[in-house]
Amino acid sequence: MSASSSSASPVASVRSAVDAELEAFCTAHRAQLLEIGAELAPAMDALEAMLAGGKRLRPTFCYWGWRGAGGAAGDPRVFRAAAALEFLQACALVHDDVIDNSDTRRGLPATHKRLAKLHADHGWNGDSEGFGQGAAVLIGDLCLAWSDEMYQASGFPLESLQRGRSPFDAMRTEVMAGQYLDTLEQVRGTESREAALRVMRYKSAKYTIERPLHLGAALAGRHEELAPVYTAYGIPLGVAFQLRDDVLGVFGDPSTTGKPAGDDLREGKRTLVVAETLARSGRADADRFRSLLGAPDLSMEAVEWMCALIESSGALDACEELVTRYSDEALAALESPALDESAREPLRELVAAATRRAH
Amino acid sequence: MSASSSSASPVASVRSAVDAELEAFCTAHRAQLLEIGAELAPAMDALEAMLAGGKRLRPTFCYWGWRGAGGAAGDPRVFRAAAALEFLQACALVHDDVIDNSDTRRGLPATHKRLAKLHADHGWNGDSEGFGQGAAVLIGDLCLAWSDEMYQASGFPLESLQRGRSPFDAMRTEVMAGQYLDTLEQVRGTESREAALRVMRYKSAKYTIERPLHLGAALAGRHEELAPVYTAYGIPLGVAFQLRDDVLGVFGDPSTTGKPAGDDLREGKRTLVVAETLARSGRADADRFRSLLGAPDLSMEAVEWMCALIESSGALDACEELVTRYSDEALAALESPALDESAREPLRELVAAATRRAH
Repeated sequence: MSASSSSASPVASVRSAVDAELEAFCTAHRAQLLEIGAELAPAMDALEAMLAGGKRLRPTFCYWGWRGAGGAAGDPRVFRAAAALEFLQACALVHDDVIDNSDTRRGLPATHKRLAKLHADHGWNGDSEGFGQGAAVLIGDLCLAWSDEMYQASGFPLESLQRGRSPFDAMRTEVMAGQYLDTLEQVRGTESREAALRVMRYKSAKYTIERPLHLGAALAGRHEELAPVYTAYGIPLGVAFQLRDDVLGVFGDPSTTGKPAGDDLREGKRTLVVAETLARSGRADADRFRSLLGAPDLSMEAVEWMCALIESSGALDACEELVTRYSDEALAALESPALDESAREPLRELVAAATRRAH
Repeated sequence: MSASSSSASPVASVRSAVDAELEAFCTAHRAQLLEIGAELAPAMDALEAMLAGGKRLRPTFCYWGWRGAGGAAGDPRVFRAAAALEFLQACALVHDDVIDNSDTRRGLPATHKRLAKLHADHGWNGDSEGFGQGAAVLIGDLCLAWSDEMYQASGFPLESLQRGRSPFDAMRTEVMAGQYLDTLEQVRGTESREAALRVMRYKSAKYTIERPLHLGAALAGRHEELAPVYTAYGIPLGVAFQLRDDVLGVFGDPSTTGKPAGDDLREGKRTLVVAETLARSGRADADRFRSLLGAPDLSMEAVEWMCALIESSGALDACEELVTRYSDEALAALESPALDESAREPLRELVAAATRRAH
């Protein structure tokens, strides 16, 4: 989701504080790396480039989870702990791009491509692609280690940090497990709605929304009271957010991110949109859809036919209905009296921002 | 290094306790993964297989670092904190094998090969090798996250854990930076002794010996007094250990590990042995050595010629002299009165075990 145009949006107000914390952390750690070897500069450049582009979604939910649990506005400690989640996300993206062999990320070369170019530009020995992939694995590892280092150095009392460990640890295990299952569903060519929903639950809903909210509540010392509220809000919102993303990945995103139409179809992603389409189509249509899905040279005509089937089968409507239903569920959870008043409206705005038709 | 035949050796006494802690941690985390999805079982199997084979070097140095700082014998908390280092090592090995595209590890299929076979055996869609590599990246990530989780759950007071964070964090950054520099030296075809020594310092000496000792001392609350002693012991011992390993990687290891002769020459590793040989040989010999280094189809005859040049150039003697000199340096550091008496003899034995001619 993009930041709203208002600088007082619940995303934008967190973003600048988180960006400043990330910058301070990177400045110190660049110095540490350069002391080991000046040749580490391009690796650090690549790491910072990946870190720079994020929407700070997870820190935003962590911050509002803290506020909803009565945490003070603008506490620099919570911005640091929340910023640590961006290092985890940077690891996930850098490694994802290696795993999927993606060329670009947010319109820029993926980290492994950037390092492959460094290799090629210097005319070093061996395979540029192989060097790039190896270097990207290591850069992702560094991000993962630094996520934890930044969290632990956020300045909270050690008891608060230890309370936050439970959601922090769960979040890491769940995103990696979810990512593994996603990879598995792709190669197994799964057509089950349940399998698609499970991946969305772990890879998106828990990782992006529920666990960051839990972390904020735990840091504020009110995990027990607020965890059920945040689960009731975060899981449906996270699935709705991913569904919106999946629909945009098929039909294209008319706004700034400019995802081309058919992208996810060309990649053969096994989303709920695909599962719904196959379940709702006749045998001949389903067979043709199946045979086209994941073809790297998919023509514009084929994409149009597939999009038409997604609509005519009723899959698109079913997905849009789910987005609405899940968004309403998330909004209903915000009625809880346990929630601090200061967070109610921002968390409501985040539902709208996460599920609007253009990102 | 192998455990000595005596069960009272400083390695063996730590190993069984560390193994038991790793097993308990894995049992709980397997249950966590299977609750997310039964299909995660093969990933967990692969993770445990990689974890099972280690020599527990880093936990051993962590434990004796603790004892040398006055920590109590057999404290289960230190075994747990030390065992956490094995998860870090498992991440390093799984990712290393992906980066180097190695087929085997300790005589068994590398993790990515194991997962590639799972893919092939099931006849899943797409490329088995690609699936195996992606899955191995994720399994390594899980190991890295769990390293930190196990450390933080070791049962020490939070203040002790926080004191240990400084060596723990440094160790992670240093091993990844060292690994990146190692990869870089390979592709640059570096022939400098200094570059080879720097990689040994970060990738082996600090990571395997110095930082684990520091961690033990920090957990015992005596980091300040013992860090200089452990650095004076750990850095030369770590370089000697790596040099011994490099010599065995060229001339073969007659003992149980059965590394074939010439292995490192075939891989083209830019070790100090290679740097010394090139620096000490005439131009014609050096050129021929250079042209053979890293040839995957290197003949037994070529290996023999290269080994002969390593000997006749004086490089082998120079390396053996360094092993002796660094071992003596490490032993001399153990004379420090700051060191608790209980650790002096075990740390002395570890010098011998790390540098003996057969591992």
